[in-house]
Amino acid sequence: MSFNSFGNIFNFTTFGESHGAAIGCIVDGIPAGLKISEDFIQKELDRRKPGQNIYQTQRKEDDKVKILSGVFEGVSTGTPIALTIENTNQKSKDYSNIKDLFRPGHADITYYYKYGIRDYRGGGRSSARETAARVAAGALAKLLLKELDIKVQSGIYAVGDIVGENIDFDFAKNSIIYSLDKNKEQYQKELIEKARSEHDSIGGISLVEIKNAPIGLGEPIYQKFDGLLANAMMSINGVKAVEIGDGVKSSKKRGSQNNDEITKEGFASNHSGGILGGISNADNIIIKVHFKPTPSIFQPQNTIDINTQEKICELKGRHDPCIAIRGSVVAEAMAALVCADLLLLNMGRRIDNIKKVYKK
Amino acid sequence: MSFNSFGNIFNFTTFGESHGAAIGCIVDGIPAGLKISEDFIQKELDRRKPGQNIYQTQRKEDDKVKILSGVFEGVSTGTPIALTIENTNQKSKDYSNIKDLFRPGHADITYYYKYGIRDYRGGGRSSARETAARVAAGALAKLLLKELDIKVQSGIYAVGDIVGENIDFDFAKNSIIYSLDKNKEQYQKELIEKARSEHDSIGGISLVEIKNAPIGLGEPIYQKFDGLLANAMMSINGVKAVEIGDGVKSSKKRGSQNNDEITKEGFASNHSGGILGGISNADNIIIKVHFKPTPSIFQPQNTIDINTQEKICELKGRHDPCIAIRGSVVAEAMAALVCADLLLLNMGRRIDNIKKVYKK
Amino acid sequence: MSFNSFGNIFNFTTFGESHGAAIGCIVDGIPAGLKISEDFIQKELDRRKPGQNIYQTQRKEDDKVKILSGVFEGVSTGTPIALTIENTNQKSKDYSNIKDLFRPGHADITYYYKYGIRDYRGGGRSSARETAARVAAGALAKLLLKELDIKVQSGIYAVGDIVGENIDFDFAKNSIIYSLDKNKEQYQKELIEKARSEHDSIGGISLVEIKNAPIGLGEPIYQKFDGLLANAMMSINGVKAVEIGDGVKSSKKRGSQNNDEITKEGFASNHSGGILGGISNADNIIIKVHFKPTPSIFQPQNTIDINTQEKICELKGRHDPCIAIRGSVVAEAMAALVCADLLLLNMGRRIDNIKKVYKK
Amino acid sequence: MSFNSFGNIFNFTTFGESHGAAIGCIVDGIPAGLKISEDFIQKELDRRKPGQNIYQTQRKEDDKVKILSGVFEGVSTGTPIALTIENTNQKSKDYSNIKDLFRPGHADITYYYKYGIRDYRGGGRSSARETAARVAAGALAKLLLKELDIKVQSGIYAVGDIVGENIDFDFAKNSIIYSLDKNKEQYQKELIEKARSEHDSIGGISLVEIKNAPIGLGEPIYQKFDGLLANAMMSINGVKAVEIGDGVKSSKKRGSQNNDEITKEGFASNHSGGILGGISNADNIIIKVHFKPTPSIFQPQNTIDINTQEKICELKGRHDPCIAIRGSVVAEAMAALVCADLLLLNMGRRIDNIKKVYKK
Repeated sequence: MSFNSFGNIFNFTTFGESHGAAIGCIVDGIPAGLKISEDFIQKELDRRKPGQNIYQTQRKEDDKVKILSGVFEGVSTGTPIALTIENTNQKSKDYSNIKDLFRPGHADITYYYKYGIRDYRGGGRSSARETAARVAAGALAKLLLKELDIKVQSGIYAVGDIVGENIDFDFAKNSIIYSLDKNKEQYQKELIEKARSEHDSIGGISLVEIKNAPIGLGEPIYQKFDGLLANAMMSINGVKAVEIGDGVKSSKKRGSQNNDEITKEGFASNHSGGILGGISNADNIIIKVHFKPTPSIFQPQNTIDINTQEKICELKGRHDPCIAIRGSVVAEAMAALVCADLLLLNMGRRIDNIKKVYKK
Repeated sequence: MSFNSFGNIFNFTTFGESHGAAIGCIVDGIPAGLKISEDFIQKELDRRKPGQNIYQTQRKEDDKVKILSGVFEGVSTGTPIALTIENTNQKSKDYSNIKDLFRPGHADITYYYKYGIRDYRGGGRSSARETAARVAAGALAKLLLKELDIKVQSGIYAVGDIVGENIDFDFAKNSIIYSLDKNKEQYQKELIEKARSEHDSIGGISLVEIKNAPIGLGEPIYQKFDGLLANAMMSINGVKAVEIGDGVKSSKKRGSQNNDEITKEGFASNHSGGILGGISNADNIIIKVHFKPTPSIFQPQNTIDINTQEKICELKGRHDPCIAIRGSVVAEAMAALVCADLLLLNMGRRIDNIKKVYKK
Repeated sequence: MSFNSFGNIFNFTTFGESHGAAIGCIVDGIPAGLKISEDFIQKELDRRKPGQNIYQTQRKEDDKVKILSGVFEGVSTGTPIALTIENTNQKSKDYSNIKDLFRPGHADITYYYKYGIRDYRGGGRSSARETAARVAAGALAKLLLKELDIKVQSGIYAVGDIVGENIDFDFAKNSIIYSLDKNKEQYQKELIEKARSEHDSIGGISLVEIKNAPIGLGEPIYQKFDGLLANAMMSINGVKAVEIGDGVKSSKKRGSQNNDEITKEGFASNHSGGILGGISNADNIIIKVHFKPTPSIFQPQNTIDINTQEKICELKGRHDPCIAIRGSVVAEAMAALVCADLLLLNMGRRIDNIKKVYKK
Repeated sequence: MSFNSFGNIFNFTTFGESHGAAIGCIVDGIPAGLKISEDFIQKELDRRKPGQNIYQTQRKEDDKVKILSGVFEGVSTGTPIALTIENTNQKSKDYSNIKDLFRPGHADITYYYKYGIRDYRGGGRSSARETAARVAAGALAKLLLKELDIKVQSGIYAVGDIVGENIDFDFAKNSIIYSLDKNKEQYQKELIEKARSEHDSIGGISLVEIKNAPIGLGEPIYQKFDGLLANAMMSINGVKAVEIGDGVKSSKKRGSQNNDEITKEGFASNHSGGILGGISNADNIIIKVHFKPTPSIFQPQNTIDINTQEKICELKGRHDPCIAIRGSVVAEAMAALVCADLLLLNMGRRIDNIKKVYKK
């Protein structure tokens, strides 16, 4: 067990701080014989890359991925694939004015008291920069899922109180804020811009969908599909709630409103979000991920320093006004990773599958 | 790794079906020298026990716990503690009329297609009966937490749309529905009763609080306190959403509204729910757990049988009209288990703590 | 992770002390659809059962196994199988004269200083009685292996310096001391009897063979077949060395003597013991397990008590004069468990196997 | 779980092939506040570095370690430490003549049939080059152990049948073949030289000692100190047997010869090798690791190719005539890693230790 590993068989371990030499990961459990496209990994990373437009931090990072191992002649060998991404934009001096301060809403204070170490350089390990490594790992998971025609997609469902109604994943792909609803995109953009111009930030919701997952994925009781997704999503920086299917609405409903009746053609509705008893039911798996507003805002805030002296925290620098946007790409990657892992775990759960693999 | 295990060091593994001989668990990682009160475990189990009032299933189970190992002269020995609870009320015939039907909202269908086995006896392993074993394990976790003055408590925050406002955990302890708000209890009871009398069921929200957890618990990145809680809660039968702190509200807010400013005396607010960067910040840890309405309702529902023939499902028997109530006790147990595990994991994360233990 | 669990997917967790109410285990990861014969489990347990002849302890335990879960209509359901074995012969008073003494060669002293607890009742958790649970779990593993025509067998290779030459597993099955060599059995029995009559004990070597394991089992680098076997064997009470293939002899040899040349029909020799690079090579897997002599001897020995006072330890009671004999059954069970686990782990290591399971 | 990870809390995950861009590892679970000396890591690597003298392969690798994360101002931050070592000497063409052949004694054949991939470049992942990453991780473990005055040391106990008698770890440090016995070193060197000049190789035994480990390390039943050591050692390339304490000799002895009597001052002998019941007893922990002779020999050998055609294998290139020598450094590193992990695991096993850390 590593605290920085995720996944049972298809798994990855990340390393790196926002201001160290590099970040990266080792992805293990990838089946041999999978075509590995470095291009595809890079494209996934580019979707999360900062500095692309005004709805994101203006910090620029190239985020060029490098494969160190596990691939031979373009194909996975079954051995661990190590990926690194160099940190090319490490402006430590940006942080000098808050060197000893705990930024409200940030993990500075908990890291300091947990480890007894003050790495003041922009969040260090708690920086969302770590999530780039997950997106790279997620790209590898997607390459596996594609072989089985499983698709994972995502987009922005809500910014603040502007909530999507007509969900369109194809629209989201080309939306500058990954908005899922073409009728809401403009309002969502305005809300972000308003927060940014008022030196503030805004929360948002990402919606992730897994399509065409086979029935039977998820290992009750403590490796349930929804349980693993919940942990996966909650581990992303700034996430404060996770919903499966109808989620929070389910707790308001009657059973007669919430049950999905079953027909020959499948489920008549999908309140459950594609998971029953922790196991995929072949319907679309629907996850909503709630991101808090970026804690880095450009207004004076009360805080203390490492000597417990009260201080005013005034942040400078470049930050995403709405972390949900780039966070959505991370949520999608995590969903792919959970799904890939459960695919592998499920293979040996029936004696007939075992015979399919081993019987000559 | 067992699919039926939870926890890294303080951990438990459960077994058993609703209609087998017994359910139970092995709890491992319990430090030696802890006073183990069988009485206390039993009392915790009694809080979850069915058949106690009209707001619960009328099925009766004694749920008497038996300790098989790991305790000598009333004290934990450091070896695994095995606990069993016999199934005394296994009316398999109750289920004969739905032997081949998949009950809407239940896991019958996913278990069948995953494992290729039809255990029609009332849910089998997917029955909430499994959660009794967790409550027993959770009682052991609480015995450890008590030694460090950490308290875990819970109650019903909402039934349907009747949401608590004045939270009072002491009131909840004596409320027949564990309601947290004495002004709402009556309305919540009426809503449950109404659903029940209309052969229906109703959803609800449990609120769990961990008080006095030391700062520093939680192991970033993939063993975060909130991540583990999310998995723990989502693994409970019928849970569809998990919130930490302000949860879903956070995604609607501005950063200036959501950040918790810091003073010499601690945080000025607790929107974060006691966790920053996946690590406890010494404030109260707040978790909201959304339970869907009981899927077992007494109205005709469309479904299919194991031969994909369309059928009408008409359930009989005895079911909780609102699973959130007894589920709340389970959520509390899971929170205690996560906290106990993180306490142990955190011990070796600083060299000075290691020296405290080993240096003579 | 439980300290008392073994295995990655096919795994088990044991509980119980020699003088508690019961011992047992939860076996998880068993594929659904496997015929489970309680009779077969019992027969395997009977092979390890004490009190059957003069070469064993005269302590009698029925060792009746009871299945509590995970089996429905004689078939595994894919859920955890819990097994218990009651302790029917708990003569705690036998141990009263050594209540405060640390028995030389036993784990009393390390358990006491590790846990701060003195469970003086015959070894408690460190008793070899725990291994009965492994044999029960191993029987389940064998049921899986049988489906793929994989065979695990064992016997006594050496008692003291009487070493087998002509290995015959069929002979061993009917030998009262499980001797592998019909020409050596009598001498081995005499050596045991001599040790016993002189109030002493004697060491021995168990030989375990896995036949017909498919090529490709074992997950480099840290879940190698030989690595897992080494841990599995070393975890058995009294084991002090583990050899794979030519083992200790390999370190004396030249490469030209030790390499196994390869022909169309397979390997020309089997010095490697069926494992190359941690992966099975389809040849027989050969493991030698060295057991120390039983530490319980009936001669006065110098020791200290829990107050560090020097004392003379004079043991009474009933003990195996040669623990290798019954230990051999345990070693066989552990080999089956490792093999079953690696079978399941290996399934997802190639994309073509994944397609065999999931592609319609 | 990663197949390429080792350790429960103090753990590492390795990546890399002999002929890829780099090898390396992520080491996690390192307590915060530990001084990290890159120099020390490099010195440990240099002990294992190839090409230093005629008793080793003449292949040269600089093996320069680079720290990518987890260290700030010379001190561990509690976050993962990633280490890379570039492959500077990748002569793939050396292997062209055996591109399709399975080299006897090597893992080519099992990797090929397991993964369906032929990475012919000198062993790929199965190359002993991977062990450099372990030595780097082991150096970090040693830095932790030093803080508690625990020492891990090793040397060559035997080459072929030239077995050490007077063990001197200080002598070994300066011996070109790490020989433990100054009276045997010359004969051992001659044996290696003779094998080499005859185009052959020779086996050997490494002896590893852990001094001053506190009593109580090791988690029964399946995380025993000796069990973990056995897996750790067996995972090293070419290891075929592992002994603890008197090891294989124990199986020849009587109990009265093998038990270690106990006095006020400690154990009167150390046949057990410092471990009882899987737990350290405060005496020196003694491990013997048997390495087979290098499988790469320069004599014609019968083999087959990937099309099952019989061929003659004639190797060229540069290989260690006795892998035990450099392997000994790896065995020492693995022992340090096991010990560091068990130190951390043991901390929470007693309630009084937990209070030492958390009670104010």
